[in-house]
Amino acid sequence: MFSGAQVSLYPMSDGFVGVILSAIDALDPWRDMLRIETDDLSTLIIGPSEVLFPAMRDLFVGAARTGVHVTLHATVSRGCPGEPDEPLCHPVAEVLDDLALAARVALAREAVASAPIFDQTVAAQFSLYPLGRDQHMDEIYGCIEFLKSSGCFERSKNFCTKLRGDAGPVFGTLGQAFTHFGVHSAHVALDVTVSANSPTAN
Amino acid sequence: MFSGAQVSLYPMSDGFVGVILSAIDALDPWRDMLRIETDDLSTLIIGPSEVLFPAMRDLFVGAARTGVHVTLHATVSRGCPGEPDEPLCHPVAEVLDDLALAARVALAREAVASAPIFDQTVAAQFSLYPLGRDQHMDEIYGCIEFLKSSGCFERSKNFCTKLRGDAGPVFGTLGQAFTHFGVHSAHVALDVTVSANSPTAN
Repeated sequence: MFSGAQVSLYPMSDGFVGVILSAIDALDPWRDMLRIETDDLSTLIIGPSEVLFPAMRDLFVGAARTGVHVTLHATVSRGCPGEPDEPLCHPVAEVLDDLALAARVALAREAVASAPIFDQTVAAQFSLYPLGRDQHMDEIYGCIEFLKSSGCFERSKNFCTKLRGDAGPVFGTLGQAFTHFGVHSAHVALDVTVSANSPTAN
Repeated sequence: MFSGAQVSLYPMSDGFVGVILSAIDALDPWRDMLRIETDDLSTLIIGPSEVLFPAMRDLFVGAARTGVHVTLHATVSRGCPGEPDEPLCHPVAEVLDDLALAARVALAREAVASAPIFDQTVAAQFSLYPLGRDQHMDEIYGCIEFLKSSGCFERSKNFCTKLRGDAGPVFGTLGQAFTHFGVHSAHVALDVTVSANSPTAN
């Protein structure tokens, strides 16, 4: 198993370097569980699927607290056949691989209901790509059913689904979508954009 | 056939609204071939696969010419089974669907060799997702073979490939990857980030 994300933070401010550097401190509590590498386009975080979204949430909330209009983009992946097995990425929790889609929808909904609240409103849109399977749309439609009952659903868009709400439940919803849809052993990718403090929020 | 992209432009500047609004004028020559809709997270452009990347190139170069550090992200998709047939999206050129992978690599390379030059250096990273097929990695490895000989290849990263070069060949390479890998009738998605004027380019 190999899992991780290429994450970028975009503060729409002349002081973007300072906003990024101060937000990175918010990753400190997660560093023991992650491998982190940065270049000029993104920061790679490698670690268990369950840890990726809470770590990205804390990074993003750290940047959004500055009040600057800021956006995060991440390309998240698990189970790519081209990547090696990495012990750091082994799931933290027990894996329930053979659950039917309806049971996974219910589990994901329960998890989001107990997400922490950060008093930081965010908008997000994301696409889920269950790869290497003939029936990939079944998993996507199951995920959309979960999203519509997550409490964060705003609307369906072409190629993605839009969420809005507090950072806690929104990142919780994204994490549940990534870990519960596309079976455990599959190659699954997720492409997400999160925004806060936009002057054009509608 | 349905094809399009959700596109976002992120100028790292206090004057981000002005940079975005002036760059949007660069889409004018393409408007007759596209349907365009905007909300607070992204701009949707719907149109033929071959037109999406030249249109995004002109939008991005328009923003990069300001000298501001600016990033573009796009979620690009074609053939999604959940979308309707859309006459606006029908391919402009003849479709060569049954070509072997090696022939498609050669065609893509030839197309990039004749790309226009904009005198604007950009860095990019992207992931290609050929969906709904058991052998999705074959198409990905074929695409990587093309990328390595495109003239824009910088390096492989986890979950994506990084390109660097002039905006013309880089967007040309992205467009060829999108149209030539994953067969014509397949559901293919592509997740791309392009950056210019970064103070930390390395």
